[in-house]
Amino acid sequence: MGDGYGRGKRRPYVVFASLRIAKLPLMSRFDPSDALYVDLYQLTMAQAYLRSGQTAEATFSLFVRNLPPDRGFLLFAGLEDVLGYLADLRFTSQDLDYFRRTGQFGDDFIKYLAGFRFTGSVRAMDEGTAFFANEPVIEVTAPVIEGQIVETFLINQVNMASLFATKAARVVKAAGGAGVADFAARRTHGTDAGNKFARSSYIGGFIGTSNVGAGARYGIPTIGTMAHSFVTSFDSELAAFRAYADAFPDSTTLLVDTYDTVKGVEVAIAVARDLESRGNRLVGIRLDSGDLASLSRTAREMLDGASLGYVQIVASGGLDEFSVEALVKGGAPIGAYGVGTLAGVSADAPWSDAAYKQVTYDGRPVAKFSPGKATFPGPKQVWRCFDEGDGPVAHDHLTSANADSPELNATTLLHEVMRAGAVIGQLPSLDQVRDRSRLELGRLPESVLELAGPTSVRVRVSGELDTSSPGRERI
Amino acid sequence: MGDGYGRGKRRPYVVFASLRIAKLPLMSRFDPSDALYVDLYQLTMAQAYLRSGQTAEATFSLFVRNLPPDRGFLLFAGLEDVLGYLADLRFTSQDLDYFRRTGQFGDDFIKYLAGFRFTGSVRAMDEGTAFFANEPVIEVTAPVIEGQIVETFLINQVNMASLFATKAARVVKAAGGAGVADFAARRTHGTDAGNKFARSSYIGGFIGTSNVGAGARYGIPTIGTMAHSFVTSFDSELAAFRAYADAFPDSTTLLVDTYDTVKGVEVAIAVARDLESRGNRLVGIRLDSGDLASLSRTAREMLDGASLGYVQIVASGGLDEFSVEALVKGGAPIGAYGVGTLAGVSADAPWSDAAYKQVTYDGRPVAKFSPGKATFPGPKQVWRCFDEGDGPVAHDHLTSANADSPELNATTLLHEVMRAGAVIGQLPSLDQVRDRSRLELGRLPESVLELAGPTSVRVRVSGELDTSSPGRERI
Repeated sequence: MGDGYGRGKRRPYVVFASLRIAKLPLMSRFDPSDALYVDLYQLTMAQAYLRSGQTAEATFSLFVRNLPPDRGFLLFAGLEDVLGYLADLRFTSQDLDYFRRTGQFGDDFIKYLAGFRFTGSVRAMDEGTAFFANEPVIEVTAPVIEGQIVETFLINQVNMASLFATKAARVVKAAGGAGVADFAARRTHGTDAGNKFARSSYIGGFIGTSNVGAGARYGIPTIGTMAHSFVTSFDSELAAFRAYADAFPDSTTLLVDTYDTVKGVEVAIAVARDLESRGNRLVGIRLDSGDLASLSRTAREMLDGASLGYVQIVASGGLDEFSVEALVKGGAPIGAYGVGTLAGVSADAPWSDAAYKQVTYDGRPVAKFSPGKATFPGPKQVWRCFDEGDGPVAHDHLTSANADSPELNATTLLHEVMRAGAVIGQLPSLDQVRDRSRLELGRLPESVLELAGPTSVRVRVSGELDTSSPGRERI
Repeated sequence: MGDGYGRGKRRPYVVFASLRIAKLPLMSRFDPSDALYVDLYQLTMAQAYLRSGQTAEATFSLFVRNLPPDRGFLLFAGLEDVLGYLADLRFTSQDLDYFRRTGQFGDDFIKYLAGFRFTGSVRAMDEGTAFFANEPVIEVTAPVIEGQIVETFLINQVNMASLFATKAARVVKAAGGAGVADFAARRTHGTDAGNKFARSSYIGGFIGTSNVGAGARYGIPTIGTMAHSFVTSFDSELAAFRAYADAFPDSTTLLVDTYDTVKGVEVAIAVARDLESRGNRLVGIRLDSGDLASLSRTAREMLDGASLGYVQIVASGGLDEFSVEALVKGGAPIGAYGVGTLAGVSADAPWSDAAYKQVTYDGRPVAKFSPGKATFPGPKQVWRCFDEGDGPVAHDHLTSANADSPELNATTLLHEVMRAGAVIGQLPSLDQVRDRSRLELGRLPESVLELAGPTSVRVRVSGELDTSSPGRERI
């Protein structure tokens, strides 16, 4: 057997060469529209739907089948991008030219795509809502081709944004009241992820981002200190610190670990005194390596001993919710955390099994029964049920969309947000979404918020949803 | 202590509120340029450099300090995007307006940014080259502000693309000659990652992608079958299969596991006979759930029993290099694999510690000595040394950039690819990069290619690089 690298006894590629491949001579570059962020099969199915006259309305549900490891909840995020995409969805003339050149599609279908718009309706949870396994966060009702074509983008954005918001909420919880900022831009999977992590982490409770473009795009506070390279550029640490403080006399945080942290703190203290003599104040020092618990205590003592109690300590360098929690529990005198890579890729849970499944076609409930992937048929409503009016969440209740309230103190979570392809009303601001998220988290039981081994909230499934799958457990 | 969610005894956010925050009233949306995909500190440092006259030339090295777990090598990818970014780098008038409104920067600096261009030079490995810990894959030499501002984007793109190409190469190795296609678009971290995974996985040996936009952008073959929702839309599986086969009589692969896989194969056989009677051929069937080893054998027997030996079996559903290897080693009669989520987020290694470090300033070698993060000073060359002329890689040798060849059979890996901000010559085509990658992998020792617990290639460090860090091990 070959190893795929051209050694040993090789088999040729046996099948995919003929499986819907459109290999083109290298084209002149063009920038495909968002409409082309789509799996090919969405378009091949669309042509088959069109030609067979199978174009009735369908409803699709977006949900996660299982919460990722160590997650008792997920925070819903990504809706604003989804609605913007749906409202603006068009195939450009360049996109259509590409299809013509591939020869994959008929002229009838390309003509259909030229006039393509999303004309459907969307019901969704509010961004910032906590959700659990098998609960639809978005339901799309549209002519089946429209509802199908948007699948790839919708799963992509909601899965990413919700994982990111959830990860951020965990770090914020661990920080116990200290501020947490997004330093992830350099290690996220690409720029879309970097921008969306800034937005989602702000929803999850971060107080700002180092990512300038995300700050500009979303109106998020931007935050920054200095890099080691700035220090090494100058002949001495003192010269570097002074140059920075001269440029930003009221907003300087000095990175003290480039050469030797304790000496770095001494130099920072000297610069703090310079600033004081000119009527300014050093804001903080940053520790980015070594034993942060011990170094932060040493630095705090040195600063306090120099009557610089107002100079705060910022910590960064490979942090996540677990290491932040350890520092906070150990009483490290750290005022703020910069959290990057491990949060920005949701390292302990970089994916969920988010799915987008058809639940009706032409008014008929449908479902799939594939092992481990069975779905509940029909459009749904999610009800959140509280112990008392303002008590913690007791459980959720999943019913068909038009069911009556299954119990007292139950609130519906899915609301119509788009009709006939147009957004209904005004979307909440990012700060409103962030407030919503904080409120939601405040009403989850403590055991659901645990960083390791959390429980989840029970989701009761109404009998009417639970029709046909043998072996599906009814509650 | 509070928990960050507004319960218990709360401390206010103590520090970041004054740490370089620019909180704006929510702005009218604009689409920031790539130049704003930058950590704020790159720009604050730039203003400090400018004002202190610290603007000499510097060299920066991009490398990984440690290979991720279970990685004996990484495949270098991302250079084409890096060079495109550097060549086109501009701050737009909207970007500059944003800076004016934040009040974070002085008019002198904003004026500087208005005329900003990248004027430096770049030395880099070829895309598709295998590299190891501490080896620079890119070295940037430019006026220090220019070299610094590009850090965030460069790390982001190279880290992502190299992790993706490497992950893909592992799956290709596991598949042992069967084709592997990218089905990851829906679960990557955003659209940039989805597009770059398609490109990087093609470099790593995948044969195509489901991502239409990536196919269009990069000239990669696009591949697709059908979704479960297509099947559930129709009154019966047979009606669905027929509708698809009518639309694509020469390129249909039927998804057979929506209801019951064995019955689905029976229906597919009926459709294959229909196609034969019209002079066409069913290309394949796809299994997406259940015990793929056992189902593929059953399906193969059924197909062969119906004289449909030419109908291939495609497998998908939560696959990665480990599950593909198990199927291949178990002799599962699967002709091709569709690999999505676990590859598209590089799930077992979603990040590397890729870093971009200043190694000279104004001709002077510099380094940082932070614990665990120390760097070698000065610009470098990486030499690949082979046992014989065309034998496997023996080891690498890291020297200063201008050193003579350290030994026989040594080849330099870093070449100048950009001078004065312009790309030198013609970049290789994506297929050339893919060929390069295949060649590279073919010359790595087997132990380096192991999926679990690989060895790596030894990187000798020349004495002249190893100057000042106490405790650094010399080879």
